[in-house]
Amino acid sequence: MSEIVIALDAMGGDNAPQATVEGALLALNELKDARILLFGSKEIEVQHERLEFIETTEVITNDEAPMMAVRKKINSSMVAAALAVKDGRANAMVSAGSTGALLACGMVRIGRIQGVERPALASIIPGRKKPFLLTDCGANVDCLPKYLVQFGLMGSVYMNRIMGVKEPRVGLANIGAEAEKGNQLAKATYEMMSQQKEFSFAGNVEARDIPTGDFDVVVTDGFDGNLILKYTEGLATTLVGMLKDEIKASKKAMVGALFMKDAMRKFKARMDPEEVGGAPLLGIKGAVVKAHGSSREGAFKHAIIQAYHMVKNGMVEEIERGIAEISAEQTNEEEVK
Amino acid sequence: MSEIVIALDAMGGDNAPQATVEGALLALNELKDARILLFGSKEIEVQHERLEFIETTEVITNDEAPMMAVRKKINSSMVAAALAVKDGRANAMVSAGSTGALLACGMVRIGRIQGVERPALASIIPGRKKPFLLTDCGANVDCLPKYLVQFGLMGSVYMNRIMGVKEPRVGLANIGAEAEKGNQLAKATYEMMSQQKEFSFAGNVEARDIPTGDFDVVVTDGFDGNLILKYTEGLATTLVGMLKDEIKASKKAMVGALFMKDAMRKFKARMDPEEVGGAPLLGIKGAVVKAHGSSREGAFKHAIIQAYHMVKNGMVEEIERGIAEISAEQTNEEEVK
Repeated sequence: MSEIVIALDAMGGDNAPQATVEGALLALNELKDARILLFGSKEIEVQHERLEFIETTEVITNDEAPMMAVRKKINSSMVAAALAVKDGRANAMVSAGSTGALLACGMVRIGRIQGVERPALASIIPGRKKPFLLTDCGANVDCLPKYLVQFGLMGSVYMNRIMGVKEPRVGLANIGAEAEKGNQLAKATYEMMSQQKEFSFAGNVEARDIPTGDFDVVVTDGFDGNLILKYTEGLATTLVGMLKDEIKASKKAMVGALFMKDAMRKFKARMDPEEVGGAPLLGIKGAVVKAHGSSREGAFKHAIIQAYHMVKNGMVEEIERGIAEISAEQTNEEEVK
Repeated sequence: MSEIVIALDAMGGDNAPQATVEGALLALNELKDARILLFGSKEIEVQHERLEFIETTEVITNDEAPMMAVRKKINSSMVAAALAVKDGRANAMVSAGSTGALLACGMVRIGRIQGVERPALASIIPGRKKPFLLTDCGANVDCLPKYLVQFGLMGSVYMNRIMGVKEPRVGLANIGAEAEKGNQLAKATYEMMSQQKEFSFAGNVEARDIPTGDFDVVVTDGFDGNLILKYTEGLATTLVGMLKDEIKASKKAMVGALFMKDAMRKFKARMDPEEVGGAPLLGIKGAVVKAHGSSREGAFKHAIIQAYHMVKNGMVEEIERGIAEISAEQTNEEEVK
């Protein structure tokens, strides 16, 4: 691979197009063998030898029905970027636009990796010991056990290839550690995950142990994953708010808080999801990264670099290989029975 | 009702029987028209004019298969307490023993309220603005929409009768606020909840808004409820731990922390589930409270007082009435169709 080409939806997110354009320039500065295709409206003015501007006339908003928008708005910045991946003009795409529309783009405009039942959205979450990957975070609200097994494989490949974890420990989010715990979906998934040999299944993760970081990948269906993701945000905000209430109620504590300002700032930085890049969409024939809607230039830079590494480290090919192996194992299993 | 009688499983929990016995005495001190039946092993020595000691010879442990234990160990402290409620010798029961066994006791030894499909476990959680009730917290891991509608009704009755909330706002835990959001279960439940008239359904609660306390009752299936409950515990511990890491890394911040000790203590007290009593088991023909396994005497006192109010305020009768109304509405609905 000579050069890695990343298609950037310049119109997605609250701070577009300034933040996307500036993020692109920051990323190009760091990635000497990357090129960016920038899809956006004609007002954008930008100059860089490794950046190509491609004019689009439409924008997909968060209020639109995703699948409909992706089918109709062919000349939107998001669909045009996806088509560049599909055609082979780009290896990866980054967008901070509507999550639903990006999922639809991945499925109908780029296409799934052969054998993948359902693509999954994954998020890196800061844990106590180390960050971990939560997947699926909302792409598939109703799941079958075999989907969750594939989420485990794809998450494991991501953590290995992109985050450099040697043998990622994959856990199944559950209400107890024992094999027989959980609802029907969890029990059936536990059994299927125990049988496959393509990733290291480390058993159930009890909900209270999810934030420790002892597991590198935490697998759930998209309903529970999204619930956990958003609840984490809400609970962290609430806890910090309740602590502030108590501090404000006491002059002594207010003085103490002044001394703790730097520590608090570091704590917040450690919790900041912006620092770890965007959410990878796993199972698509191409590297796709969903940047947070509120991303600023730094977050876009991170998301582009992340997409770059997904291509550089052969993530798609490795997922393809793993999925084929699991399917073969499952077929053999059937035949033996 | 002249006198309220509470059956206490003296052998349940990590600190039994000392903590249970002392908790009983503390509660009797506050409740002048209550009597306690104390079920436990013969070593227990206690004297109070409104306390009756009843010797039992067995104890159900956390390791046993719940339904089996409840069927076999007739002379265990937990089953004997349940039978006292069944026979009418007691109006309520409190236990800090195995949650699974207590659920089984409720179902096979005491029995469900007529029309209740599935009893539910509920927990009071401290929210930013006010505490709220989360239900089901783990009794039913696989649910139908009609179960969740009943959980909403029972939770609403509890918050009204026991916590004094005038018209409890009942929300459905979901991944978005709009009616069409969620998995199959959530969508079907939303529709059924919108149609009933027995409690005030306030729509979906997005996961990030659960901790605010804007809803008085948050309804989920037992899998997600248990996940949320345990995740809350784990995340709070992790966040406090991460904050401590940053404080310990800086001498200045350590000084600040000294000034903040009192505020931190108050914050912790506000988060302490011990302060709000035990988890009510809703849908059983009798008031049943599951005290936390680590309960000390104060927590047992609270749990006993809680059970007392459940009886005093006619919670069971009100649930029975509400369930009958909802069933009638549903039948009418069918006929109209």
